[in-house]
Amino acid sequence: MRTYRCIVKPLALAPCTSDIHTVYEGGVGERFDMILGHEACGEVVEVGALIRDFKVGDRVLVTAITPNWNSVEAQGGYAMHSGGMLAGWKFSNVKDGVFAEYFHVNDADGNLALIPEGMDYGTACMLSDMVPTGFHSAELADIQFGDVVAVFGLGSVGLMGVAAAALKGAGRIFAIDSREQVVPIAKAYGATDIIDFKVAPTEDQIMELTDGKGVNKVIIAGGDQRLFATAMKIFKPGGRIGNVNYLGSGDYVQIPRVEWRTGMAHKQIFGGLMPGGRLRLEKLARLIEFGKLDPSLIITHRFEGFENIEKALELMRTKADGVIKPVVYMTSQKVNE
Amino acid sequence: MRTYRCIVKPLALAPCTSDIHTVYEGGVGERFDMILGHEACGEVVEVGALIRDFKVGDRVLVTAITPNWNSVEAQGGYAMHSGGMLAGWKFSNVKDGVFAEYFHVNDADGNLALIPEGMDYGTACMLSDMVPTGFHSAELADIQFGDVVAVFGLGSVGLMGVAAAALKGAGRIFAIDSREQVVPIAKAYGATDIIDFKVAPTEDQIMELTDGKGVNKVIIAGGDQRLFATAMKIFKPGGRIGNVNYLGSGDYVQIPRVEWRTGMAHKQIFGGLMPGGRLRLEKLARLIEFGKLDPSLIITHRFEGFENIEKALELMRTKADGVIKPVVYMTSQKVNE
Amino acid sequence: MRTYRCIVKPLALAPCTSDIHTVYEGGVGERFDMILGHEACGEVVEVGALIRDFKVGDRVLVTAITPNWNSVEAQGGYAMHSGGMLAGWKFSNVKDGVFAEYFHVNDADGNLALIPEGMDYGTACMLSDMVPTGFHSAELADIQFGDVVAVFGLGSVGLMGVAAAALKGAGRIFAIDSREQVVPIAKAYGATDIIDFKVAPTEDQIMELTDGKGVNKVIIAGGDQRLFATAMKIFKPGGRIGNVNYLGSGDYVQIPRVEWRTGMAHKQIFGGLMPGGRLRLEKLARLIEFGKLDPSLIITHRFEGFENIEKALELMRTKADGVIKPVVYMTSQKVNE
Amino acid sequence: MRTYRCIVKPLALAPCTSDIHTVYEGGVGERFDMILGHEACGEVVEVGALIRDFKVGDRVLVTAITPNWNSVEAQGGYAMHSGGMLAGWKFSNVKDGVFAEYFHVNDADGNLALIPEGMDYGTACMLSDMVPTGFHSAELADIQFGDVVAVFGLGSVGLMGVAAAALKGAGRIFAIDSREQVVPIAKAYGATDIIDFKVAPTEDQIMELTDGKGVNKVIIAGGDQRLFATAMKIFKPGGRIGNVNYLGSGDYVQIPRVEWRTGMAHKQIFGGLMPGGRLRLEKLARLIEFGKLDPSLIITHRFEGFENIEKALELMRTKADGVIKPVVYMTSQKVNE
Repeated sequence: MRTYRCIVKPLALAPCTSDIHTVYEGGVGERFDMILGHEACGEVVEVGALIRDFKVGDRVLVTAITPNWNSVEAQGGYAMHSGGMLAGWKFSNVKDGVFAEYFHVNDADGNLALIPEGMDYGTACMLSDMVPTGFHSAELADIQFGDVVAVFGLGSVGLMGVAAAALKGAGRIFAIDSREQVVPIAKAYGATDIIDFKVAPTEDQIMELTDGKGVNKVIIAGGDQRLFATAMKIFKPGGRIGNVNYLGSGDYVQIPRVEWRTGMAHKQIFGGLMPGGRLRLEKLARLIEFGKLDPSLIITHRFEGFENIEKALELMRTKADGVIKPVVYMTSQKVNE
Repeated sequence: MRTYRCIVKPLALAPCTSDIHTVYEGGVGERFDMILGHEACGEVVEVGALIRDFKVGDRVLVTAITPNWNSVEAQGGYAMHSGGMLAGWKFSNVKDGVFAEYFHVNDADGNLALIPEGMDYGTACMLSDMVPTGFHSAELADIQFGDVVAVFGLGSVGLMGVAAAALKGAGRIFAIDSREQVVPIAKAYGATDIIDFKVAPTEDQIMELTDGKGVNKVIIAGGDQRLFATAMKIFKPGGRIGNVNYLGSGDYVQIPRVEWRTGMAHKQIFGGLMPGGRLRLEKLARLIEFGKLDPSLIITHRFEGFENIEKALELMRTKADGVIKPVVYMTSQKVNE
Repeated sequence: MRTYRCIVKPLALAPCTSDIHTVYEGGVGERFDMILGHEACGEVVEVGALIRDFKVGDRVLVTAITPNWNSVEAQGGYAMHSGGMLAGWKFSNVKDGVFAEYFHVNDADGNLALIPEGMDYGTACMLSDMVPTGFHSAELADIQFGDVVAVFGLGSVGLMGVAAAALKGAGRIFAIDSREQVVPIAKAYGATDIIDFKVAPTEDQIMELTDGKGVNKVIIAGGDQRLFATAMKIFKPGGRIGNVNYLGSGDYVQIPRVEWRTGMAHKQIFGGLMPGGRLRLEKLARLIEFGKLDPSLIITHRFEGFENIEKALELMRTKADGVIKPVVYMTSQKVNE
Repeated sequence: MRTYRCIVKPLALAPCTSDIHTVYEGGVGERFDMILGHEACGEVVEVGALIRDFKVGDRVLVTAITPNWNSVEAQGGYAMHSGGMLAGWKFSNVKDGVFAEYFHVNDADGNLALIPEGMDYGTACMLSDMVPTGFHSAELADIQFGDVVAVFGLGSVGLMGVAAAALKGAGRIFAIDSREQVVPIAKAYGATDIIDFKVAPTEDQIMELTDGKGVNKVIIAGGDQRLFATAMKIFKPGGRIGNVNYLGSGDYVQIPRVEWRTGMAHKQIFGGLMPGGRLRLEKLARLIEFGKLDPSLIITHRFEGFENIEKALELMRTKADGVIKPVVYMTSQKVNE
């Protein structure tokens, strides 16, 4: 009797690095006999009796994080942790995911949004996780007009972090990675300087480029816990880390005491799971609808047909062929018309 | 024995609508025998004994608002009101302004910044007032990712408000004015919809275009006090006005009780003078230096020679020839090389 | 099939000034044949099938504002406006109120909380509206350590505003009213100076007592729209109004242009309906449970028996007998043991 | 020609644990032949030519952190780091301290405040460092109405942290230490539960007392880096650490990855040096002046005469005789009359 749910049939799906963690390594918690996937857009095929705002046939954006909106955590501003830490993440975490013929969306009035007319279904899938996670990094880092920002890790989330930093008014944006294929995309999203960490230690390169002044804010969207130490070395006073990287290994995140200035330097450390929910979907979709953001630049591979999900997933695992993000369309129609 | 000051020789100057208020009408307070002007960039020709960071020959940005930075108001985050309401505004308000062969900058370490290499002096002048005032409007309105924003008044400050709204991640930006010549500039800065208030009441046009949902935030950069009522009619819950328009006449700003929902609707009203100071200059200059903002689009008229200031001022007064903003260069060299 | 609701039987009830507005004058919108009242605590007698956290027999706090928590407004932080401006207010506004043998609570997991052991049912009723509304005023005014604060109107909400200002770290608290009986209560809640507005204009008294410096923040919890003008006259830079007074008459709230310094003075105007919901109930109840707040000081009259509600309401209407707040207990048991 | 300074003659002085670090161990940076001390109040004996607001004979509060207020760091809200990380701390760090017959105060208009009439000079000394540092911890932790807070370390700063948490509206305050003598003082300042960490692991005690729910916010005012791990174990979602403890040893502050939920749990880490300056002195003094705070409860030992500073310092070093904070008055007059 789950009357606040909708059943949705996917129009497009996308595998995520988290799916790789879940299947192969690094996922937190044992999960068996569960359908994978949390990035999708789809068509509503069944609505619960208590649903107010959606009807069968609606084509919908689906957020990867689907909170219980009347939880106390949501009331306190942390919907993504409704019912416990990270428990707003339900797809392929505590219930079946979206790589299926049909999937279930809890609290559907609160967790779906209409796909804007004319939006490509691949782009729509980016609104499940890549866009909101990347954009949350810039919120966590509290970027202000003219800030100097460093973005670590230029996977699809990091690239969205670059775009988000630019759209929050960052002045100079250091984008840090070593892969050639991401450079033009990072620049298209607003990176002003590309740093290849293989050339020299990142902190040395940034301090030199800034005449020893360093950066205001750091976005961590890749790499490992050692980046927190790097951040501490390049911060101006009032620095702030916005971490959205799932730290998959190690016992500790180590903050170097001296560079952190014995805890006295106002170098703040923020990190968190993306906020989910309908309002978020609607607001980020608006950026795309009105031409402020084009997340499709991160989609490097496009497949058609449900049977290709495995291939797309394998691509994410091997990182072959310069892949950043693959999308699998369910049909030959690719745009919401 | 004012040892914290610099003396600066202008490289370029710009008249402002406030100068028109000062000379002709609407200025608050009587002022006699005082030099006009508060928008300039220049070259340092003399430095006080206590100046740490500037030397003779430095080419500098000059903020229109030059606070006393050790005042309690500045310590509380309201430097623009250091020493009293609006008293951070000194040029042609409590001391001689910048339309002179030389001008005086108080607390110069805190109120000057170096002109970045390659910056046009006209652009540099826009950092005195137009850019920081416009950008403050978006800060006051607290624009968030995907917000729907209405910007009232597309003079040079309003156009900078449009740019600032876009650079804070607004999704849809209604730009409201009736002058044709501002349309392409507003669009270049990120306006998604142009509203001509002469066609129909603005509130009707906006409510129709948003399917009755209205806007999240309002920037007021022109018009008169009646716009506060308009704002109340188009707000979603949590709306917020960022006013940077100097309200030059009338006894009251009237907030309509019913549309304000008896004070219960969380439709907040913010307004304030631009923050001044060196850090602000440096951060906003960075946006220009790294290609995020080009304020020169608002400069419609360029003159050369001190003797043309009067002509430029007259242009601001008459609003002739489609003027948005004139600049007067002091020499034939126009760029900081 | 309203499966997210509970049915509650009242343990105590309290009439509110808003009830007087509803019945006699000033209420917004026509309402007929509807049960009155929105302040109550009670016992759960029936639970919907989807309720997770409450069971029959639980004694519960009930918030006067009962939002739909999965609305987009709630997701944006404005739950009190879920479904439209002020539409989180449902009791005796869009559905029957609580002055009944049984009442209905929508989204009950999100809008109820357990009454702490040992709490008086009268005190529990104060958590429906008086405490959260009063405390919201201090949040809206954004009170900081050491602020000088003026609280206008020392009815039960204003007295809670005084307590809230003190509990947010205000340094000096001017409490403004002309009724003698509220003075000791205001002082008990932390007022440092009592201002009788009948003695001399409030602004004159406050400016004199502060050596012309004025106040940082203003709470408006009574009076009429003219207080907004008073506030503008006594603010330091960065002043902020937190209004929780339902402005029941007049076409406009008039902000005096010169005192508001032409919109340039960063004297901000906030106002809004109290936030509702379970988390809020739990957090404010904690203040009482751990001895930080005793709202029972505002309860001047205590009745027993449902039949006395009318008498209590009449007392609120006439303001006779020095009444601040009456409570009606349903039984002789008055404490949750 | 340092014309913005005052010379002050001490009226009372207090040694600080930081002085012990400076002399004996753990101080950062070598310092030789330098006068110790940064907690004092005094009488102005000489004023620079540019001083506006103080005159010879004024009795003044002196902030331990004396920023350059026109620095870019101060303009950005981080005055304590003006001129470099922690460089707002000048006394016995980069210039002679206050344990002297006379001491020098830079930017004196911005870094002194008048001692309120009737204030004990010992209490006045607490405004140099203990009160502002303790109160900053509650600001860093962003305490809200009804929060459950844990305060680690009940030295004088931690006790002020308890008071600050209470004055920011915390509901339940766990105060953690193992010394008996601090218990009544912690309770007087608002602690609701005392936790002796020697009885059982703190996290176990707190989780049991909160029925497994944990706390909203943590203040760290003592102990060592291991407390960051403890904090991660007891946080609800949205937890935030406010650290004001100078971490004197170890290479790293170690954040446990799993308890930090792989960086995804919005358990934020803030830490920083106290803000200095005149406005801060005035606002915190107001809390004392109007009876909201009595920091004198932390003063356990009172001496008279300059010659007793060494004895007081020795007491801080040995922590003998149940000392929390000693004060040394310069004369037999102890109160500002």
